[in-house]
Amino acid sequence: MSRAFELARAVRGTTSPNPAVGAVIARGSRIVGEGATQPPGGAHAEAMALRQAGDLAHGATMYVTLEPCDHYGRTPPCTEAIIESGITRVVVAVGDPDLRVSGRGLEQLREAGIEVSLGDGAAEGAAHYEAYVHHRRTGRPFVTAKFAASLDGRIASTSGDSRWISGPQTLRWAHQNRPLFDAMLVGVETIIVDNPQLTARPEGWSGPVPQPLRVILDSRGRTPLESRVLEHTSSSPTLIATTSAASAEWSEALASRRVNVARLPADENGRVSLASLLDLLAREHGVVSLLVEGGGEVLGSFFDQRLINKVTAVVAPMIIGGDAQTAVRGRGAERMRDVLRLTHMSVERLGADLLVTGYPGNPEHELDVRIRPAGQADVDAVDQLLASQIIERPLKCEELLTEARAGDVVIWLATSHGSRTDVQGKAQPFEDVLGVAAVKFATDRASIPCLAVRPDAPASVAERLRDSCEASASGRDAQWLTLTTSTTIGLSEEQYRSSGYRYYRRDADGSDVLIKRLHA
Amino acid sequence: MSRAFELARAVRGTTSPNPAVGAVIARGSRIVGEGATQPPGGAHAEAMALRQAGDLAHGATMYVTLEPCDHYGRTPPCTEAIIESGITRVVVAVGDPDLRVSGRGLEQLREAGIEVSLGDGAAEGAAHYEAYVHHRRTGRPFVTAKFAASLDGRIASTSGDSRWISGPQTLRWAHQNRPLFDAMLVGVETIIVDNPQLTARPEGWSGPVPQPLRVILDSRGRTPLESRVLEHTSSSPTLIATTSAASAEWSEALASRRVNVARLPADENGRVSLASLLDLLAREHGVVSLLVEGGGEVLGSFFDQRLINKVTAVVAPMIIGGDAQTAVRGRGAERMRDVLRLTHMSVERLGADLLVTGYPGNPEHELDVRIRPAGQADVDAVDQLLASQIIERPLKCEELLTEARAGDVVIWLATSHGSRTDVQGKAQPFEDVLGVAAVKFATDRASIPCLAVRPDAPASVAERLRDSCEASASGRDAQWLTLTTSTTIGLSEEQYRSSGYRYYRRDADGSDVLIKRLHA
Ligand SMILES: [Zn+2]
Ligand SMILES: [Zn+2]
Repeated sequence: MSRAFELARAVRGTTSPNPAVGAVIARGSRIVGEGATQPPGGAHAEAMALRQAGDLAHGATMYVTLEPCDHYGRTPPCTEAIIESGITRVVVAVGDPDLRVSGRGLEQLREAGIEVSLGDGAAEGAAHYEAYVHHRRTGRPFVTAKFAASLDGRIASTSGDSRWISGPQTLRWAHQNRPLFDAMLVGVETIIVDNPQLTARPEGWSGPVPQPLRVILDSRGRTPLESRVLEHTSSSPTLIATTSAASAEWSEALASRRVNVARLPADENGRVSLASLLDLLAREHGVVSLLVEGGGEVLGSFFDQRLINKVTAVVAPMIIGGDAQTAVRGRGAERMRDVLRLTHMSVERLGADLLVTGYPGNPEHELDVRIRPAGQADVDAVDQLLASQIIERPLKCEELLTEARAGDVVIWLATSHGSRTDVQGKAQPFEDVLGVAAVKFATDRASIPCLAVRPDAPASVAERLRDSCEASASGRDAQWLTLTTSTTIGLSEEQYRSSGYRYYRRDADGSDVLIKRLHA
Repeated sequence: MSRAFELARAVRGTTSPNPAVGAVIARGSRIVGEGATQPPGGAHAEAMALRQAGDLAHGATMYVTLEPCDHYGRTPPCTEAIIESGITRVVVAVGDPDLRVSGRGLEQLREAGIEVSLGDGAAEGAAHYEAYVHHRRTGRPFVTAKFAASLDGRIASTSGDSRWISGPQTLRWAHQNRPLFDAMLVGVETIIVDNPQLTARPEGWSGPVPQPLRVILDSRGRTPLESRVLEHTSSSPTLIATTSAASAEWSEALASRRVNVARLPADENGRVSLASLLDLLAREHGVVSLLVEGGGEVLGSFFDQRLINKVTAVVAPMIIGGDAQTAVRGRGAERMRDVLRLTHMSVERLGADLLVTGYPGNPEHELDVRIRPAGQADVDAVDQLLASQIIERPLKCEELLTEARAGDVVIWLATSHGSRTDVQGKAQPFEDVLGVAAVKFATDRASIPCLAVRPDAPASVAERLRDSCEASASGRDAQWLTLTTSTTIGLSEEQYRSSGYRYYRRDADGSDVLIKRLHA
């Protein structure tokens, strides 16, 4: 299967809108046929491998990176060819997310008596097909943001000089990376300031380099006619996305140079609607994967609109400071809870630079959050949590720890669990504390003297902690549960009221005490 | 020796201005005595170990992390005690940079007939004593800058919310890290906005935590009297560095709270002179290591004045964007050649965050630059270098590669060499191309059709390439060497003229052609 992926990787960037597939036919340990997806209209990987294997396919096993197709497109279905060849076993890494295929290819093979197994190489397949899967599910390109910044987030010196933030190995990597994308996008400011060619010039690439479609975001039609990005448009096509604000003369001059000018709807700021652009790229240009290279305003707009599916950031070992330009601008995140967090982050070195890769993740959906009582073993961790100011206003909680040890207080922890890949590539399990709450028992009633969650915790964490406090108070037969709004962080007074808490009295320090009847 | 360093590390933060030393006395594989430096005025590591070993020291070997002292300070010299004990062999990791000691401790021991060896554990020693060595050589504290920023360099959301950029593991690390410093510094803005305690509250620390001196940079005397940093000044002393601009009432109010107010000279912007502050900290407070934690203006000022000796930056996996605050401000680097580059960069993970550590390095002094002719094996690399736009205006150079293959052109490369630690901690050798120059031979004269260096290359690289071009032209008996200023990047016309090049003629494209006589 790893050989099949090798074959598939070698054709990345040449197959869209079809997926890059690799197929290997083996008899025991002997490979009798290999193939990879040909450019659109050409043969599929399975057909290529079968052609090479000929009669040797009879009784052999096929390893294929993606579920074989079962429908007539520009080529006949691969399932038919496999069945006819006499292959007796098919090993598939990833099921096809394409609704025309999904599961039916495997079914068809099984019905013909072929032994089918799915999932060998699934992890490798998930990475290899991330763009394809996204595209098939959403109808839009998979968008990767790329930028290179200093350790303090700058992309140029204060005078605007940007050569070179990243080192030679990173520049080489960038040219190796570009041909893997169907299209790459920059803003017109980048064209005006840097006048780049926007072509892929990788080292040691065998055969002609697949050139991504060059896309320029240019709402008002300011791309200079002498820009280098407008040259060589036959080998490296260029599309300028603009709005009705661009002049007719300008777009005619471009059309005469075989540059594709797309007039798209404008958003409320008069800028090209990015959603319309993504739809257009997928629909009319077969773009499955798009690389957004900048500048800062363009990246900011994509991030603001949550249109980025992957981030590749190069961190260069330098400090620039001052008011030098930053890598991502746009509107930005107003509150910490709006910040775009990355998951599945990995890091590698490119010479002296770091390449950091991650995927925007919604922590609410991604996190495995659990609520559990804090045990004796957690006292230090809770202590530390409070002392480290991860939780705001912790002071009122401190004394509770002593009482918790005596049994008059139960402390609940909200924790998130998972595993992270360390720099050696090994998975390391972790438990992070997201929040803490305490219930204190008195003769006839209980109180929540403290409930606090980290500001970056998912919204449901505070509610789940409150639920657990209520449950433990009920368990001790308390009739009423009280709390002071000033010592619970994460739920508003309104949220308490809407779940049955009522105004009770004003506390000594002026904050409101709420009460809820637990047993009717 | 590794046990000796363990002992030394355990007392870091408690010994300044003395170095943290560990000593182990062994007979074969059996340890008979161990010791580490006691707080100032107490015994040195060697004395502690000798005390434990007693008569067993006779004929034993002492492993000690730093050269033993040979002078009377607050304790008698360790060399005497070692000689008296009957120790027959001393193994030392690092020689003492203190001029009162340097080499004389070892000499003294050798004269007494003790076998002395130096350098076992030198690498570990260099890291352990980096602050001490800097302090002894310069008389100033070793300054470490620390900040935590998003992947796009932000330290808060656009509304100013900074809780929490870094994750819980990073916050834990920060508290473990602080006690290793003699002092930590923030600006008054941080005090006003965040009101931090600025104490070290590490998890699982055995014994009382050594609290760094808290230093506030407050040029105009704005620290509020109710700030948390002004509490607990007996266990955790506080010093406010200000200028004559601060009011007398304010400083009297602080003095009555046992806060040390130091009025220092102002710089041309009316701010506390940082150089004066560093001198004061070293001279009057025994500060060997200082941690500067922010905010952005404070870090920027330290970076602008090149007063940072080490950078520890936490990169959090998030994108914030907009006009959110950045980690390092100040005046900043105007040109790319002014940018502060970090060498010896290492990276580790703290939960989901990355901890990046590096040392500001002047590439001119740090780089091992070599000039060598490009061979057949380099053609691809040079091609790539030119195509990748690492060198500006490369187009005129391209055709030269063909001629180089034919022998009519010699291409010189400037390369830098070294090794970098990869993420697995292994040293990886590298060669980076910094510049390229070509000499083209005609019948009676030679020309330099292209000379170009990366803008971030040390200033001497262009000169060294020119020297090599001249040398190879002389070698072929050319009488004259010409060049067009528009195709050589890295040396100005003035620099050429001052080394013998004269105006010759105007080229077709309007640029000047210079000529130099090679043989008189
Ligand atoms: Zn197919
Ligand atoms: Zn000593």
